[in-house]
Amino acid sequence: MESRTPSESKTVLTDLVLPSETNPLNNLFGGELLARMDRAASIAARRHSRRIVVTASVNHVAFNKTIALGSVVTVEAKISRAFKTSMEIYIDVWIEDRESGICSKANEAIYTFVAVNEQGQPVPVPPVTPETDNEKERYDGALRRKQLSLVLAGKMQPNDATELKALFT
Amino acid sequence: MESRTPSESKTVLTDLVLPSETNPLNNLFGGELLARMDRAASIAARRHSRRIVVTASVNHVAFNKTIALGSVVTVEAKISRAFKTSMEIYIDVWIEDRESGICSKANEAIYTFVAVNEQGQPVPVPPVTPETDNEKERYDGALRRKQLSLVLAGKMQPNDATELKALFT
Amino acid sequence: MESRTPSESKTVLTDLVLPSETNPLNNLFGGELLARMDRAASIAARRHSRRIVVTASVNHVAFNKTIALGSVVTVEAKISRAFKTSMEIYIDVWIEDRESGICSKANEAIYTFVAVNEQGQPVPVPPVTPETDNEKERYDGALRRKQLSLVLAGKMQPNDATELKALFT
Amino acid sequence: MESRTPSESKTVLTDLVLPSETNPLNNLFGGELLARMDRAASIAARRHSRRIVVTASVNHVAFNKTIALGSVVTVEAKISRAFKTSMEIYIDVWIEDRESGICSKANEAIYTFVAVNEQGQPVPVPPVTPETDNEKERYDGALRRKQLSLVLAGKMQPNDATELKALFT
Amino acid sequence: MESRTPSESKTVLTDLVLPSETNPLNNLFGGELLARMDRAASIAARRHSRRIVVTASVNHVAFNKTIALGSVVTVEAKISRAFKTSMEIYIDVWIEDRESGICSKANEAIYTFVAVNEQGQPVPVPPVTPETDNEKERYDGALRRKQLSLVLAGKMQPNDATELKALFT
Amino acid sequence: MESRTPSESKTVLTDLVLPSETNPLNNLFGGELLARMDRAASIAARRHSRRIVVTASVNHVAFNKTIALGSVVTVEAKISRAFKTSMEIYIDVWIEDRESGICSKANEAIYTFVAVNEQGQPVPVPPVTPETDNEKERYDGALRRKQLSLVLAGKMQPNDATELKALFT
Repeated sequence: MESRTPSESKTVLTDLVLPSETNPLNNLFGGELLARMDRAASIAARRHSRRIVVTASVNHVAFNKTIALGSVVTVEAKISRAFKTSMEIYIDVWIEDRESGICSKANEAIYTFVAVNEQGQPVPVPPVTPETDNEKERYDGALRRKQLSLVLAGKMQPNDATELKALFT
Repeated sequence: MESRTPSESKTVLTDLVLPSETNPLNNLFGGELLARMDRAASIAARRHSRRIVVTASVNHVAFNKTIALGSVVTVEAKISRAFKTSMEIYIDVWIEDRESGICSKANEAIYTFVAVNEQGQPVPVPPVTPETDNEKERYDGALRRKQLSLVLAGKMQPNDATELKALFT
Repeated sequence: MESRTPSESKTVLTDLVLPSETNPLNNLFGGELLARMDRAASIAARRHSRRIVVTASVNHVAFNKTIALGSVVTVEAKISRAFKTSMEIYIDVWIEDRESGICSKANEAIYTFVAVNEQGQPVPVPPVTPETDNEKERYDGALRRKQLSLVLAGKMQPNDATELKALFT
Repeated sequence: MESRTPSESKTVLTDLVLPSETNPLNNLFGGELLARMDRAASIAARRHSRRIVVTASVNHVAFNKTIALGSVVTVEAKISRAFKTSMEIYIDVWIEDRESGICSKANEAIYTFVAVNEQGQPVPVPPVTPETDNEKERYDGALRRKQLSLVLAGKMQPNDATELKALFT
Repeated sequence: MESRTPSESKTVLTDLVLPSETNPLNNLFGGELLARMDRAASIAARRHSRRIVVTASVNHVAFNKTIALGSVVTVEAKISRAFKTSMEIYIDVWIEDRESGICSKANEAIYTFVAVNEQGQPVPVPPVTPETDNEKERYDGALRRKQLSLVLAGKMQPNDATELKALFT
Repeated sequence: MESRTPSESKTVLTDLVLPSETNPLNNLFGGELLARMDRAASIAARRHSRRIVVTASVNHVAFNKTIALGSVVTVEAKISRAFKTSMEIYIDVWIEDRESGICSKANEAIYTFVAVNEQGQPVPVPPVTPETDNEKERYDGALRRKQLSLVLAGKMQPNDATELKALFT
């Protein structure tokens, strides 16, 4: 299969924070943001693979900034690397100030999707060719994250996780 | 106020058609698409004016293509022209074929928003400077549409609607 | 097919404005009202045609009055005229004051629906026999609106839109 | 306070059964119908009392007919009797066959609401003057149902429930 | 069929009161609580019968306590008695105070479900063996409630409702 | 502050998979499960701290099993360890087979919450006293996960993450 660039699958979902999505402090629920990121990321994975895709895992996500009711939130999802049948999707979340128009980073998250056929069986996906420096850096880090994921799931011995181990030694 | 270009307020909302938004033929309800376009258009108007905005009117909208459950729909909203306190927002709706990745135009709509202060009173908005040919054409048509809107609402005599009348004579 | 009167398909949808349907000023979102009107109008069209119906277009809609959270909103939809396979539905929206019980007009809108069979192909619908003065006036205006719709969609030359042209000359 | 007739507060809510409201057999969830009836009945109670109203109780409700996805459901709510600060609301639910246009009764339910002020304290409501035979019959039965409700809640001795007791002796 | 105990089908649904479920006084809508209780009760009925289940009726429900936005609400559903194809489910609703951690009873309700096969036809369910005093008391009361339900539906003469009649004589 | 046990804050949310929560393969969306787990976990954190709580982070989550429309899903959340103002919540997700009644593990996730006052400032929380073997094991692993989280966020040098480093050397 021919490789594709991250910008070919880039997905932008700009929407309001609605009243039904807020917690008692009138901020967006963490869980709602996770759901919105999942939808944007699944579209990016679908665009890259042109297949049905299902969420395989979510990497560590930190919620550093609260997002108030009525905010305009932009979720931007781009593929960072493809493995045999899986795709790592990087998600950047931005909020913008209404009066100044300035955007600021609210969150970053990494989801993994698997491409499947109509029976739900995994199928191969095209490789990724990163273009920008940021895309290359994320591409390089993806293998380390995959190893971390396998170690955490007990499917790889820490000693075999060569990329990951290098961080600590 | 300094003018702004349409691309400065361009808003993209790419999302899935969810099961709760479909009619008995398993296609997106017309009403749900109208609501989704309203949210995207209101963000574009907010970005242009940096104010709270409220929907003032919806121009004629034709639903030419059905949009199936599970489709990826892109709603793209851009300001076409600003009047004293109101903004005309042009919305293009695209759906994409999963297997070929090809996007096709599904709809086009025009909404008008008014910028208001915290008390709901109209406030002035910056003018628009169109850049591309398409933006210029939409900018030029906006006055004719405003006259049509006033005539339909009984607030202008057909004979005073000079831009509109020119179409028929 | 035997004709039917507008009152035979009259549809009333009285419901509350719920917290999940409001904007930052605590008023009903324009888009939500458009969706609610679409549901009521589609029922009126279904009652007239006794067929599956799909939204074909929405005429110009003006939002003159804000509708606050907790309001009681009545959407009343009635067929105004039928063409071969399409139906024009007139929608009146009322809000009522809790303390005085007085109803006031909040909006008016016109939607067009097409009757289809299970395969989505257009099928003929019965003609309409207007009874009241208001129904007759709306029936008469429907042809002019259909021509305007065709002109706006580029499917009819302004010069052929005889009913419409008469307004300006 | 001047009395009002049931028809003055009659509330009609005709709407579709949406995909998000159905169970695994593709029929309307009982719980969703209970929620929809609650909204219609609360509007009828509000129209009669012109006050904020809160649900006080739901009488026995039987679900005799399943209601399929895509059905048109009409919920009709009318006050049957008012006590000092409470109102009994009778709800009739109809579904209609798309092809024949015939309506059939799907459910009947009785809700009780209390009128309250802004602090949530009960306030008096106007009496009801029934007009039709059906309204008179429901008015007469209301006292028996109120006694049954008090007996079931342990707030009245069965022997003091004179209207109710008469049924069994 | 072998009997099962109430604790085998006990279902706990603890969840927040979300902003989209509240009325103008910022309390949980009665109708939403009815829907939530219906879901929990249907799971208890499904666990007891291991069949598809549909709501047959709701007994008298009183709303004694308001439940504020942001509250933690626990709905606990347990089977009280099974008849041939139907099951009576008892539901207790608790709210808890955030600061003291104290739980208090907010509501009690009784729903009846019928077990059905894939064609929607009623099928037999296992009997219930109550264990605790509370379970035994609810088991004993179930026959009286069933008779009340049949009398109210006009399917049993008050004089034949022996259990019920005993209350008044 | 006096310590509390995990079982004191244990939260169970058993509910159905509704049609509005499913993807094109008719399985629960990953994002919806993330939102549901967030609600259950936030209640457990609130019960332990008796404070308002906000989501701080989500650890790695793997979606090993698909969860079909109509399934009964049990989300069980329990605190595993508290740090100064934050709490690690362990979530186990179970689905049950309708016919056999057998429950199987579908997912496991770890969320971190911070307790805050009304102004959103972090406040101290009580320590945790684990009781069962499983609770003790999760308590012990929490420090290692906290270090991993800090390393991934660039707030701790890998060499200072003593617990984590021990895994690889």
